[in-house]
Amino acid sequence: MIILGIDPGLRTTGFGVIHKQGARLRYIASGTIKSGEGDLPKRLKVILDGVGQVARQYQPDCAAIEQVFVNVNPQSTLLLGQARGAAICALVTAELAVAEYSPTQVKQAVVGTGRAVKAQVQAMVARLLALPGLPGTDAADALGVAICHAHSRETLTLIAGANAASGGTVAAAGLPGPLAGLRMKRGRLVG
Amino acid sequence: MIILGIDPGLRTTGFGVIHKQGARLRYIASGTIKSGEGDLPKRLKVILDGVGQVARQYQPDCAAIEQVFVNVNPQSTLLLGQARGAAICALVTAELAVAEYSPTQVKQAVVGTGRAVKAQVQAMVARLLALPGLPGTDAADALGVAICHAHSRETLTLIAGANAASGGTVAAAGLPGPLAGLRMKRGRLVG
Repeated sequence: MIILGIDPGLRTTGFGVIHKQGARLRYIASGTIKSGEGDLPKRLKVILDGVGQVARQYQPDCAAIEQVFVNVNPQSTLLLGQARGAAICALVTAELAVAEYSPTQVKQAVVGTGRAVKAQVQAMVARLLALPGLPGTDAADALGVAICHAHSRETLTLIAGANAASGGTVAAAGLPGPLAGLRMKRGRLVG
Repeated sequence: MIILGIDPGLRTTGFGVIHKQGARLRYIASGTIKSGEGDLPKRLKVILDGVGQVARQYQPDCAAIEQVFVNVNPQSTLLLGQARGAAICALVTAELAVAEYSPTQVKQAVVGTGRAVKAQVQAMVARLLALPGLPGTDAADALGVAICHAHSRETLTLIAGANAASGGTVAAAGLPGPLAGLRMKRGRLVG
């Protein structure tokens, strides 16, 4: 199963693509879509086209997008909402089911605590996907959303259903989390 | 020139299509797109598909969308932003240039004062487009955005350019506004 994760933003939209096979997660791709300058409709089109292109290129089976914080500045909240709307439009146009997770849920799934800072998310994403280096923060958040979705009940149920339908065993049941054997200790990774 | 106006909303998105020929505005169509229940991605898809269908059906030359008020509730602002983002995505996908106008600009253009109430907008839209009855508030707002765009400098310049390019006269220059001969007086229409 290929999962596309999206970290939405008006300026920068992060994307991350992972492959899940049983308990194993494998990195496929990640990056950012920059909306550039231009007026709002033009910038939304860049996001719509960019996310659409990622979906066409990597042919994910499902998608997940981070819920966004409400900004103290209402105008910023409105702009962010429109950017997130454009990203979701690209996903539903690609006929992908779209799951939503809060930043706290993503941090909990990736780092093990909802209060993790960005650097911890980057480090754990790199570790869980065996990356040679740290991904950028936007790409790391997007990969984090994809990892969070990979561990969600919904996804496990889908995989179980697919295996049952194909006569296979329910490989997703009772999977150990990717955090088995990994714990955060005072912000440093310990294996 | 056919102009599509959009009044965005998560629950109800209004649309209005008008034809502008010289100083003359003619009503073509109006209505609403209801996003129904379902989760947010599903509702955004209804808006995206609905506005896209309107664009395909009426083949407008350009589009205009109302700017939205920042709500006192930040979560509502975020939802409205996403709905507006979906509507804009449908317009840019249809390769339409998208202009944006504030509610005050629309009221100013339609009623003659930025402090007009909804009933005044409905009444003036009905009058300007010679409608047999009052349009609903969402459709009236959308038609109002289209009327506002029809009178914008940008649109007049476009028409002038097209006429010049085709060797025609600059029919748009010095047009009387549609409000010529019409004034609001204590909220009632006087001809």
